[in-house]
Amino acid sequence: MFDEIHEECGVFGAYRLKDAAALTYYGLHSLQHRGQEASGIAVCNDHVIEVIKGKGLTIDVFNKQKLELLKGDCAIGHVRYSTAGGQEYQNIQPIAATGPLGEIAVVHNGQIVNDLELRRQLEEEGCIFQGTSDSEIILHLINQESGDLLERAMKTARKLVGAYSILIMQDDHLIAFRDRHGLRPLSYTRDRDGYLISSETCAFEIMGIYDSITIAPGELVEFKKGLAKAYQYIDPKECSSNMCGMEYIYFARPDSVIEGQNVHSVRKETGRQLARKDQDLNADIVIGVPDSSLSAAMGYAEEADIPLETGLVKNRFVTRTFIQPTQSMRDRGVRMKLSPIPSVVKDKSVVMIDDSIVRGTTSRRIVKLIREAGAKEVHVRIASPVIQWPCFYGVDTSTRKELIGANLSVDEICEYIGADSLKFLETDEVRQAACPVGLCMACFDGKYCTSLFSHQKSLDEDLADV
Amino acid sequence: MFDEIHEECGVFGAYRLKDAAALTYYGLHSLQHRGQEASGIAVCNDHVIEVIKGKGLTIDVFNKQKLELLKGDCAIGHVRYSTAGGQEYQNIQPIAATGPLGEIAVVHNGQIVNDLELRRQLEEEGCIFQGTSDSEIILHLINQESGDLLERAMKTARKLVGAYSILIMQDDHLIAFRDRHGLRPLSYTRDRDGYLISSETCAFEIMGIYDSITIAPGELVEFKKGLAKAYQYIDPKECSSNMCGMEYIYFARPDSVIEGQNVHSVRKETGRQLARKDQDLNADIVIGVPDSSLSAAMGYAEEADIPLETGLVKNRFVTRTFIQPTQSMRDRGVRMKLSPIPSVVKDKSVVMIDDSIVRGTTSRRIVKLIREAGAKEVHVRIASPVIQWPCFYGVDTSTRKELIGANLSVDEICEYIGADSLKFLETDEVRQAACPVGLCMACFDGKYCTSLFSHQKSLDEDLADV
Amino acid sequence: MFDEIHEECGVFGAYRLKDAAALTYYGLHSLQHRGQEASGIAVCNDHVIEVIKGKGLTIDVFNKQKLELLKGDCAIGHVRYSTAGGQEYQNIQPIAATGPLGEIAVVHNGQIVNDLELRRQLEEEGCIFQGTSDSEIILHLINQESGDLLERAMKTARKLVGAYSILIMQDDHLIAFRDRHGLRPLSYTRDRDGYLISSETCAFEIMGIYDSITIAPGELVEFKKGLAKAYQYIDPKECSSNMCGMEYIYFARPDSVIEGQNVHSVRKETGRQLARKDQDLNADIVIGVPDSSLSAAMGYAEEADIPLETGLVKNRFVTRTFIQPTQSMRDRGVRMKLSPIPSVVKDKSVVMIDDSIVRGTTSRRIVKLIREAGAKEVHVRIASPVIQWPCFYGVDTSTRKELIGANLSVDEICEYIGADSLKFLETDEVRQAACPVGLCMACFDGKYCTSLFSHQKSLDEDLADV
Amino acid sequence: MFDEIHEECGVFGAYRLKDAAALTYYGLHSLQHRGQEASGIAVCNDHVIEVIKGKGLTIDVFNKQKLELLKGDCAIGHVRYSTAGGQEYQNIQPIAATGPLGEIAVVHNGQIVNDLELRRQLEEEGCIFQGTSDSEIILHLINQESGDLLERAMKTARKLVGAYSILIMQDDHLIAFRDRHGLRPLSYTRDRDGYLISSETCAFEIMGIYDSITIAPGELVEFKKGLAKAYQYIDPKECSSNMCGMEYIYFARPDSVIEGQNVHSVRKETGRQLARKDQDLNADIVIGVPDSSLSAAMGYAEEADIPLETGLVKNRFVTRTFIQPTQSMRDRGVRMKLSPIPSVVKDKSVVMIDDSIVRGTTSRRIVKLIREAGAKEVHVRIASPVIQWPCFYGVDTSTRKELIGANLSVDEICEYIGADSLKFLETDEVRQAACPVGLCMACFDGKYCTSLFSHQKSLDEDLADV
Ligand SMILES: Nc1ncnc2c1ncn2[C@@H]1O[C@H](COP(=O)(O)OP(=O)(O)O)[C@@H](O)[C@H]1O
Ligand SMILES: Nc1ncnc2c1ncn2[C@@H]1O[C@H](COP(=O)(O)OP(=O)(O)O)[C@@H](O)[C@H]1O
Ligand SMILES: Nc1ncnc2c1ncn2[C@@H]1O[C@H](COP(=O)(O)OP(=O)(O)O)[C@@H](O)[C@H]1O
Ligand SMILES: Nc1ncnc2c1ncn2[C@@H]1O[C@H](COP(=O)(O)OP(=O)(O)O)[C@@H](O)[C@H]1O
Ligand code: SF4
Ligand code: SF4
Ligand code: SF4
Ligand code: SF4
Ligand SMILES: [Mg+2]
Ligand SMILES: [Mg+2]
Ligand SMILES: [Mg+2]
Ligand SMILES: [Mg+2]
Repeated sequence: MFDEIHEECGVFGAYRLKDAAALTYYGLHSLQHRGQEASGIAVCNDHVIEVIKGKGLTIDVFNKQKLELLKGDCAIGHVRYSTAGGQEYQNIQPIAATGPLGEIAVVHNGQIVNDLELRRQLEEEGCIFQGTSDSEIILHLINQESGDLLERAMKTARKLVGAYSILIMQDDHLIAFRDRHGLRPLSYTRDRDGYLISSETCAFEIMGIYDSITIAPGELVEFKKGLAKAYQYIDPKECSSNMCGMEYIYFARPDSVIEGQNVHSVRKETGRQLARKDQDLNADIVIGVPDSSLSAAMGYAEEADIPLETGLVKNRFVTRTFIQPTQSMRDRGVRMKLSPIPSVVKDKSVVMIDDSIVRGTTSRRIVKLIREAGAKEVHVRIASPVIQWPCFYGVDTSTRKELIGANLSVDEICEYIGADSLKFLETDEVRQAACPVGLCMACFDGKYCTSLFSHQKSLDEDLADV
Repeated sequence: MFDEIHEECGVFGAYRLKDAAALTYYGLHSLQHRGQEASGIAVCNDHVIEVIKGKGLTIDVFNKQKLELLKGDCAIGHVRYSTAGGQEYQNIQPIAATGPLGEIAVVHNGQIVNDLELRRQLEEEGCIFQGTSDSEIILHLINQESGDLLERAMKTARKLVGAYSILIMQDDHLIAFRDRHGLRPLSYTRDRDGYLISSETCAFEIMGIYDSITIAPGELVEFKKGLAKAYQYIDPKECSSNMCGMEYIYFARPDSVIEGQNVHSVRKETGRQLARKDQDLNADIVIGVPDSSLSAAMGYAEEADIPLETGLVKNRFVTRTFIQPTQSMRDRGVRMKLSPIPSVVKDKSVVMIDDSIVRGTTSRRIVKLIREAGAKEVHVRIASPVIQWPCFYGVDTSTRKELIGANLSVDEICEYIGADSLKFLETDEVRQAACPVGLCMACFDGKYCTSLFSHQKSLDEDLADV
Repeated sequence: MFDEIHEECGVFGAYRLKDAAALTYYGLHSLQHRGQEASGIAVCNDHVIEVIKGKGLTIDVFNKQKLELLKGDCAIGHVRYSTAGGQEYQNIQPIAATGPLGEIAVVHNGQIVNDLELRRQLEEEGCIFQGTSDSEIILHLINQESGDLLERAMKTARKLVGAYSILIMQDDHLIAFRDRHGLRPLSYTRDRDGYLISSETCAFEIMGIYDSITIAPGELVEFKKGLAKAYQYIDPKECSSNMCGMEYIYFARPDSVIEGQNVHSVRKETGRQLARKDQDLNADIVIGVPDSSLSAAMGYAEEADIPLETGLVKNRFVTRTFIQPTQSMRDRGVRMKLSPIPSVVKDKSVVMIDDSIVRGTTSRRIVKLIREAGAKEVHVRIASPVIQWPCFYGVDTSTRKELIGANLSVDEICEYIGADSLKFLETDEVRQAACPVGLCMACFDGKYCTSLFSHQKSLDEDLADV
Repeated sequence: MFDEIHEECGVFGAYRLKDAAALTYYGLHSLQHRGQEASGIAVCNDHVIEVIKGKGLTIDVFNKQKLELLKGDCAIGHVRYSTAGGQEYQNIQPIAATGPLGEIAVVHNGQIVNDLELRRQLEEEGCIFQGTSDSEIILHLINQESGDLLERAMKTARKLVGAYSILIMQDDHLIAFRDRHGLRPLSYTRDRDGYLISSETCAFEIMGIYDSITIAPGELVEFKKGLAKAYQYIDPKECSSNMCGMEYIYFARPDSVIEGQNVHSVRKETGRQLARKDQDLNADIVIGVPDSSLSAAMGYAEEADIPLETGLVKNRFVTRTFIQPTQSMRDRGVRMKLSPIPSVVKDKSVVMIDDSIVRGTTSRRIVKLIREAGAKEVHVRIASPVIQWPCFYGVDTSTRKELIGANLSVDEICEYIGADSLKFLETDEVRQAACPVGLCMACFDGKYCTSLFSHQKSLDEDLADV
């Protein structure tokens, strides 16, 4: 599946480390798959925060000169997928401001669902908002609370509902916390005399560090005076383990470890489960849609003992600044991203694994491609359940109206995408693959782990719409 | 293996097709792996040639406005890997000039080895050169010869020695030819009422076309008045089949078909052959270095019946505009391109497949990576022979002094890269994998299929140097 | 004098006019001499404010596409000279934010002297500051006050001390006000069914409008429901007429009318006054330093009845993105901005008029230039008094330590700049030239028309320093 | 007059001088008024020529890094006004090529009228042309001739007909020559142990050098082994003095000295002559259209003893990257370049001096402006004769059809532009002002000093057209 689901962010922090900005640069680069629209780094040097940010990939926003301007041994950074509308500079993170505690910078991954409520309340107290990002809400809350930074951060954390993995930097002082349901990943690790914090562990690996600590749901870690100290900011009874299932299924990099489970291995296991549901399928080869489905395809091939093949090749130079083919070209078949290898699929009965189906258009195009390249049969297997619900936790799937799974039965989807057969996983099967991690599966089963506040209304309208 | 071998070009042409420039844009995009330094398109419209070219990826050089300036239904294009020094605009292709026949544009993939001789002779005849590209030599030759475009092209083709796949455009008239040894690939195909020509067939596939015709060694195809007509421009006795072995091993896209053989399948077969040489190796998993070695790894795994795994993940946002880590960061292990998946390789005996070894530094780094991630044993298998000679046919490997294989024995290389064991293929084994295609293997065995002219001297000096 | 004094801003607004953003673009372009570092425009369209801003000249920040994004018939804009340090995006105006009244945008020209006091108080009330501009203070104040926009603006205006010409836009509603001492200019005029507001009237002229109304000190004009209504927001007894003398002397464009007086004519009159002090000087020609001193030179020549000549030519392509000559080049005399015309000054006794002297280095260089070009005598006449004090009202002259006039006597300055004689005007003479407008002359006589609040300390330190 | 006549180039050279590229950079900057479309510098360092060039102002094309790449103590540079159509990179100068003598670079100011003939002849000899510039013809000719560089340059110079001031650089060897009629200016001067060459002397002045030598018509100066040696390359009987009259009237900078005469002084003298024709005109003030007509206005005012005033102000930030006002805005009077000062012209009888009239539209607009600003009478005086013929010597005026002076009588023009009266100078009067320099006045009197070759035909057609 591609062009359809967008994760909204990645965060990275470096605490008391020489070249903090450069480390953050490399860290963000390895989190780039989490957001390609904008990138930014803030450093703190002698109480003063310096921010450089801009539109584009980390490697495009920064050059040597700019990186050298970012002096200091504490840094936080952010990569971002734009949310609807607001592509403006004002919303690019980190966001920094001066208040009673001095200068503070914030980065945030996720989505706060009581955002409107908080915003309104803050406005009533006289706060003004220069952008539309959740980070600005967080900055205001921290400034409105009383106490030192730690106290303020804890009070703020308690007020937020939704998905959030947040880093706050003030002076030589970093605070990291995760929402009470653990919807978005966040880990940290020791590096020499300092610390690194990251959305995904792949950012630690590129620095040669393979061990790390997951910040728990409802946990806050304070990095101060060279030490990391963890606090549970909310009663553990109010916490749960609801890691976004999509992180395992699609978002995260295969080499990352999330809540102790390696993403590639979880995906491979989902592939195996798909195979177990296919006792009677006599296919010739298994192929995955690159890159996100290659792990699941590997698992399926192993379990089913059918040869794994490379049936599709993905052009690696695809970016967003592309001139889209005109309709007449698309009608003729011009496409930029995926090509089949005809000699591989020719006259074969093919099992094609993909990670998920959103609107169905992409799957339909790929199945057509493989058939044109000569495949005899195309059996599509999806390494996740049917997506039927919108996400309110930081992922930009579509409204129900656009979700094919909310509108058609599996058989109808199969017909729409032109496959010979189609199977999905059950939510339980995904949960088993990720076991023992507890998963949010709301976009599959509609069971949101929080109240949705003002967003409930848009969901209701959405439901009425279908 | 990465950062070490550079192919120098890809060419694409569209003849009598609506939106010729746009098709060429998409064609070049799918040939982008053959050159990322510069990109250009020339169109011919009513006798007038218009060229737009610049540094960078095709998708960065062109935007909608620019593409729309390129009107006409004949186009040729080029992607380029810079050769040493001359990064200048003057050398970016296509190169166009006005002479007795009117305006002509040329693109060229390969390297002419009697370039200095031709250049000197042309200078004596009063020609001047504004750049250092072979295309400018070709333009001059065509203008110096007599006859119509076809005659001139044939006479020119006969004078060139070396590797060349060339497209010439004049007015509503396209000519494509390949050197007599068939060193560089070139194919064409019919598209509706016109034709497409490309270095690799992957460019046809993205337009939904899976069949194509290989231009033979010493063959020239003229596209005129809507027809394609082939000529043998030189006595077939002087021709041979010497397709660059490296195209199969490393350069070409896996979905391309070269001289009838699919690249992925040839690579997979080289992997199988590696496995056949390893009857006694009891490894736990097979991994490939992404992306170029994944096909061979798949072949090895199948043949040896050892599980294929994803041991290394490649960051897909790596480009050349990167801020390189400082030495102190590199010492700490910061790296931008490849990461291991520790849980996959941990405590395993790993067979690691790579396509080739040039200077050995990359292999050494990767072996170290896999060991740090916990592998018990790392057995390196290279899906090609030992590179020992420089290439004079359009590939920028290094001088012998820098080629580890020209200086160390296999055992010594094994020690240098820190592997538990190391094996290469023999040239014959590669030839078998690509069978029935005849291969150039000069960079492995020093048997150059042409005289080297002035370049012989640099080779001799190189040899003396070691 | 050049490279030495920097005015900090120009503001422009268009109310209920078709193409408001385009008008603002042209308006800002004609105010560009007031600030070349950054430029921005905000429009309001159906309650939503859209802002585009960036570094550079107005004509560089905007292109057709960007301008077309700015829909709506109300707009405010700003050109800016960077203040020390903060070149950041955060400080580029307009600044917009959402608060209890909805979206509001603000632009500001001048400097608030009780800024620190207001900022601290606002921070105590929980406000946070994302930048360091005065505009952000104003936005906060408006949001903290009660009442409708008009009431809030009036209350805000009363709290500000210093120099400020401010535009506030909310919805279809514009408010413009000027500080109680009238330190910075601000005028408005009717254009068809709407209004234009501008720092200088030259922006009206390019739209073919030659009549306008000066907003009085302590006056606020509300543009609402198509009407302009003026209010005195503070007791007239607390108001005074203290128009910045430097506006007439140097900043404003010669074609602007400030408080009823045309700038060129005032400058010409200062030139006349200089001539009246020179009864006995038998010079051959009068020249002005282009462009700012040409008007005064014309006045001097007329009054003294000495021929006006073009002794110096200014390169019109000078901008800030210049590669500065190295010291060794400067030692050789390489210079980029001004050239003498030797045949004009050769063997002549020259009266050279300049507008002011800040550090003296520029005058010294020009005198040297004219001598090298062959002048026999160079008599420097300055169309303003000796600058001896820093400005706290929006002008970036230097500290006293750097002001040559604060450290040397007129005779010593004459010697330093290498002139044969040197004369300045008295403050009273300038006042007469601008009569009946009341002038601030604080940078000449140290008589600041407001308390300086926290800036008093930096002034005291500055005084101690000399 | 503005936006109507375009000079096509400026050239600069530095011979055996440290920082040759930087000097050329500053030299070109001071010649920028001669061409703003593109800029380039070539240096020669140890036989190798390096060229950097691009679209835009010199200060935009080069930055510190780029300048530092241009090592060597010999350099030539060029600023360029685009000629119709060919805005392409291929035509940006310097143009460099390798031929029998090694690498050579050329820059050229002017226009060769036997260009087509030379081009055809060269093509027949097998030369190819990658662009459409005259410089490429010159490069070819030099390579086609025999002998050393000096001989070749002389033979080449003899073959060219038209207007040309040319610099050729090869190795540590520079050659400068001017056409036999001396149509375009070219001077050189000594600088320490080396030499500087420039289109205009204003480029020497910014380096503190006020004396220079004019290269005579038909003269060639060779800079070799540290010495400058002059040659007459063609029989002096075939030479004449036909300096382009427009250089004095409009193109050159007022501080330049052309053929011994300072431009400002010549302009002032033309103003005086205009005044002498106006014995009976009782005007109140004299104003010039800035910047080009200010000198003539000064001369008129002095001679007529009528006060000189500043009636028009020109926005100094006008460049080509401008968003043009829409027609509806222009109808409303929005304009970007010139503004009147109403208080100056109000109720006055104004003599308005401009340098020339091309299509008349600009004059019409300015007269209207001054009237709207309140002038009682506007008497237009043009400091040149009526332009009636196209120029073939490097100036892009229009065809006869567009030249108002070729189509209307002076009275009709007066009516068209809305003036109360209108007078031009006679060609003789201009000649007297520039005396003793001999002038080309072909665009005024149709007396071309050379055959026009193929261009005669376009002139004939043009004549037929009117
Ligand atoms: N270097 C990589 N190698 C393999 N998978 C990757 C890599 N980087 C990211 N991914 C995975 O691929 C996903 C992107 O999926 P992919 O199928 O390539 O793109 P698309 O968005 O077009 O489906 C990422 O979210 C991540 O799980
Ligand atoms: N989309 C693709 N999928 C798989 N392989 C590709 C793709 N594009 C190019 N390749 C192959 O990968 C080679 C590049 O090898 P890779 O290992 O990825 O990079 P490098 O070794 O240069 O770092 C190409 O020459 C081609 O054979
Ligand atoms: N188009 C113009 N014509 C004449 N004077 C101008 C123009 N634009 C601005 N000015 C005046 O020139 C001043 C700038 O002075 P000038 O001497 O040119 O520059 P510098 O800052 O180098 O002294 C402006 O503040 C203004 O008073
Ligand atoms: N710095 C300068 N000061 C005065 N005149 C100049 C300067 N630079 C160029 N010029 C003269 O002004 C001419 C340009 O004329 P001008 O009237 O300013 O522009 P336009 O092309 O709009 O008429 C130049 O060709 C030159 O003669
Ligand atoms: S709803 Fe879906 S995408 Fe959103 S957090 Fe839950 S699992 Fe992830
Ligand atoms: S020498 Fe090697 S790289 Fe060169 S053409 Fe032959 S096989 Fe290819
Ligand atoms: S102190 Fe000087 S510069 Fe500042 S406002 Fe007063 S007169 Fe103007
Ligand atoms: S025709 Fe006119 S513009 Fe051309 S060279 Fe002669 S005087 Fe100059
Ligand atoms: Mg995918
Ligand atoms: Mg590789
Ligand atoms: Mg000045
Ligand atoms: Mg002019």
